[in-house]
Amino acid sequence: MDVLWADRDTLPLDDRGLAYGDGLFETIRVQGAEPLLSARHVQRLISDAHRLAIPVEEATIQSVMRQAVQRYGRSPGADWVLKLMLTRGSGGRGYRLPAHPTPRLIVSAHEAPPIPPREGVAVALASDPLPQEFATAGMKSLNRLPQVLASQGLEGDLWEHLMTDGDGGMLEGTRTNLLARWGDQWLTPPVASLAVAGVARSVAIDWLEREGEALREVSVPLSAIDDDRFQGLLLMNSVTGAVVVTRLGSQSLPCREPVWALRDAINHRMGLNG
Amino acid sequence: MDVLWADRDTLPLDDRGLAYGDGLFETIRVQGAEPLLSARHVQRLISDAHRLAIPVEEATIQSVMRQAVQRYGRSPGADWVLKLMLTRGSGGRGYRLPAHPTPRLIVSAHEAPPIPPREGVAVALASDPLPQEFATAGMKSLNRLPQVLASQGLEGDLWEHLMTDGDGGMLEGTRTNLLARWGDQWLTPPVASLAVAGVARSVAIDWLEREGEALREVSVPLSAIDDDRFQGLLLMNSVTGAVVVTRLGSQSLPCREPVWALRDAINHRMGLNG
Repeated sequence: MDVLWADRDTLPLDDRGLAYGDGLFETIRVQGAEPLLSARHVQRLISDAHRLAIPVEEATIQSVMRQAVQRYGRSPGADWVLKLMLTRGSGGRGYRLPAHPTPRLIVSAHEAPPIPPREGVAVALASDPLPQEFATAGMKSLNRLPQVLASQGLEGDLWEHLMTDGDGGMLEGTRTNLLARWGDQWLTPPVASLAVAGVARSVAIDWLEREGEALREVSVPLSAIDDDRFQGLLLMNSVTGAVVVTRLGSQSLPCREPVWALRDAINHRMGLNG
Repeated sequence: MDVLWADRDTLPLDDRGLAYGDGLFETIRVQGAEPLLSARHVQRLISDAHRLAIPVEEATIQSVMRQAVQRYGRSPGADWVLKLMLTRGSGGRGYRLPAHPTPRLIVSAHEAPPIPPREGVAVALASDPLPQEFATAGMKSLNRLPQVLASQGLEGDLWEHLMTDGDGGMLEGTRTNLLARWGDQWLTPPVASLAVAGVARSVAIDWLEREGEALREVSVPLSAIDDDRFQGLLLMNSVTGAVVVTRLGSQSLPCREPVWALRDAINHRMGLNG
């Protein structure tokens, strides 16, 4: 595996990450020198690399993360974002896999975005449905054009666009997964329907299971928000934590106590302050 | 716009073509110094760039193509492939579009693949359906992971994998569009259902319209190949032309005279020899 540092290196133009999005990425919030949820990030990267048949060794990833934290680590308390991109490496023209590719791991450091306000955010619906990905479902691959296009118009007080399936089921945001409170249950769409099965989503699910809460992995129809059983909607990702949705388009959403409590629990388990 | 030559330049690691597949590409067969179907390729690139809001000028593309042909042009009669990738250029972390991006045009030259034999090829079904892309339907974007994965196992005498929608409708190959002969009509899936609306497909459709042939843009169900009205299947792309499918999996397909004639007409109109 070749390791490339974004502040020093450049990419050969025959890299398949560029040509086809043939690769993966992780974005990891780091507090000073401590990457949050690093074990889950590394595990997802390795698991998805296996799905793509990109050869990668955990020890190498771990070593590069340690080097990255040394190189870019800020003073204690200062947050930043470590991004890793893993590509299949160089290849000829054509989709077929090269026989013996040498993957590339690309490392960069970025500003940390603010943690969204505890009092919640307003979101709207994306104009196009989320493609159902089949073989790449849930994979944080470099194929992210649907999310790029769905991010257009995200400005001002609008924090996220929700993407639906073709039948009006809410699936996820452009950069967040979702959990809804429904009666005394939690609902979240199954991984097979998702573009990205997020690390924060897995934190939330593990916490709910440990607490003995009822969780169903099902599509959440848009019409649910008009039902008395609907108690609130949470969005989450591993960089900014969980946030309560107070408004969807022009409609105010209920936000009952369990939803606020789960928001706080996720952020606490992630190690997020604020 | 920055122009990068693959045999000389490298890519900054913050390019959004790498990060998100935020870009497009064209592969153009060149005979000596003559690019085939260059007007259609340029038109598609510009049209899709507008859909992605990537600023690009036709004069620049044309000028770069002329330089490329001078730089890489082979002796008369020698075929090669010119590849253009257009990315949105550098950007920060996050899907949202940078305010004033400078796109990059990346130019490379490649070996020309052989024209498939006139007597036809054997294909099989891909194991996963083709995702329905919605906002990016028909666009030759850099998001090509489904095609990469569907290309696995393409070896030996197997020339292509056909991808279906979730309901068993044949949509396209990993690198080809399809046309079926059905009674006295031609069938081809509509652009809204396609990953790539190919240049060779547009050549074929224009030819059929000029000849007054009946063409319907509909999904072609797999079950159609068992019907007496099914008369044959053609695959096509702009680099290797059109080819008749003689076998799908373990099943021999009929190949009636109009199918052979359309194959020859497409290749003739593309300027392909053989």
